[in-house]
Amino acid sequence: MAVDRDLLAYLGQFVTGHKRQLFERRLQQRTRHLTVVLEDIYQSHNASACLRSCEAFGVQDVHIIENRYSFRLNPDVELGSAQWLTLQRWQSEEQKGSETATRRCLAALRQRGYVLAATAPHAEGVTLEEYDAIRPTALLFGTELEGLSETALAEADVRLHIPLFGFTESLNISVAVAVCLHYLLSQLRRSPVDWHLSETEKEELQLEWIQQAIDSRRLPIILAEYQRRRAE
Amino acid sequence: MAVDRDLLAYLGQFVTGHKRQLFERRLQQRTRHLTVVLEDIYQSHNASACLRSCEAFGVQDVHIIENRYSFRLNPDVELGSAQWLTLQRWQSEEQKGSETATRRCLAALRQRGYVLAATAPHAEGVTLEEYDAIRPTALLFGTELEGLSETALAEADVRLHIPLFGFTESLNISVAVAVCLHYLLSQLRRSPVDWHLSETEKEELQLEWIQQAIDSRRLPIILAEYQRRRAE
Repeated sequence: MAVDRDLLAYLGQFVTGHKRQLFERRLQQRTRHLTVVLEDIYQSHNASACLRSCEAFGVQDVHIIENRYSFRLNPDVELGSAQWLTLQRWQSEEQKGSETATRRCLAALRQRGYVLAATAPHAEGVTLEEYDAIRPTALLFGTELEGLSETALAEADVRLHIPLFGFTESLNISVAVAVCLHYLLSQLRRSPVDWHLSETEKEELQLEWIQQAIDSRRLPIILAEYQRRRAE
Repeated sequence: MAVDRDLLAYLGQFVTGHKRQLFERRLQQRTRHLTVVLEDIYQSHNASACLRSCEAFGVQDVHIIENRYSFRLNPDVELGSAQWLTLQRWQSEEQKGSETATRRCLAALRQRGYVLAATAPHAEGVTLEEYDAIRPTALLFGTELEGLSETALAEADVRLHIPLFGFTESLNISVAVAVCLHYLLSQLRRSPVDWHLSETEKEELQLEWIQQAIDSRRLPIILAEYQRRRAE
């Protein structure tokens, strides 16, 4: 999808130069090389903390699967981070039974070239430190108590776990997301892997962010004015 | 402090062999090379998630400073992890004004040879990746909204931060604790640094854990019987 550069330039007038520069810096650090898939996370403070960490570490895309539970956010924890992310929600069509949302989400990610990495609470597969994210990787995280569904585990290309050394056998879900993202991205940012967005992706995102930054009551008026001028 | 090895052997009879072996394995992975200091954390789910991560990663000592707020746990998040940790609480004596608990805690840690590393939400000092935890390090984390107190920041030997790349300017406190512990420990465990407990420390902790594992109603009877036999 090509970006309407005239629109981008036009809307840019309604945002301060400081903000445009901030967007520029953030775009340089943004990545789709890693993406996060959250399956049936139902506690709003966990869901919110996950999004906050994704945004803070520069991961643009988060896939939210709702087979059984709805994903709800807690604004006190999420702190507005969701507005800068590309959230894609996958909901199960009830008549087809459960876990269809998982199936569709994972098929779409596989088609986009992602390795599907299921995070496992127990010592299965490779450790986080052993995993080499040279290929684009979708990190799959499961629901709070039971972890990933059978479907997600069966579809995954690899299982990875964070090595634990205590009596506690699992980490909080938002903690696990952040530890994985921090570790893999700190490796990637020092590697020769090109984890950046393409120039087209940066422009698309810039257009979204600029629209986010404009007062939502003013935006329709500004867009209508842009259309009127083009039609002249 | 020497451990009463007769008592250790005596109490060991009341715990299954499986459990004693589990304790043995956990003791091999336990460390005081890193310790965590939590200053005025007031949300129980954050406090609980912090303890759960410390325990899971094998960090034995957690210092809890209560200048202004009380530290409360949420059992649904903490999941029993606190019983395996050595928690030390530092409370301010009110007549002496605030932050005296911080002062006493940090003085005690300095005396035990710890480098005091203040975690900063902004890009101050060194990055987590640059920090070399070759010396025993106490990681200081501050209260949810305002971060560390002036006293803690002034007393610290070094400031370190987790590099962030998004619009979100800070991580959830329990996320920050886990990311720091995971990263530094994954480096330490691969390094020549001796981060293990001493043999005496292991025995002391084994004695504590065995007592934790014995039914709390039976324990006083068992201990009285041990005293009676020794007196014979």
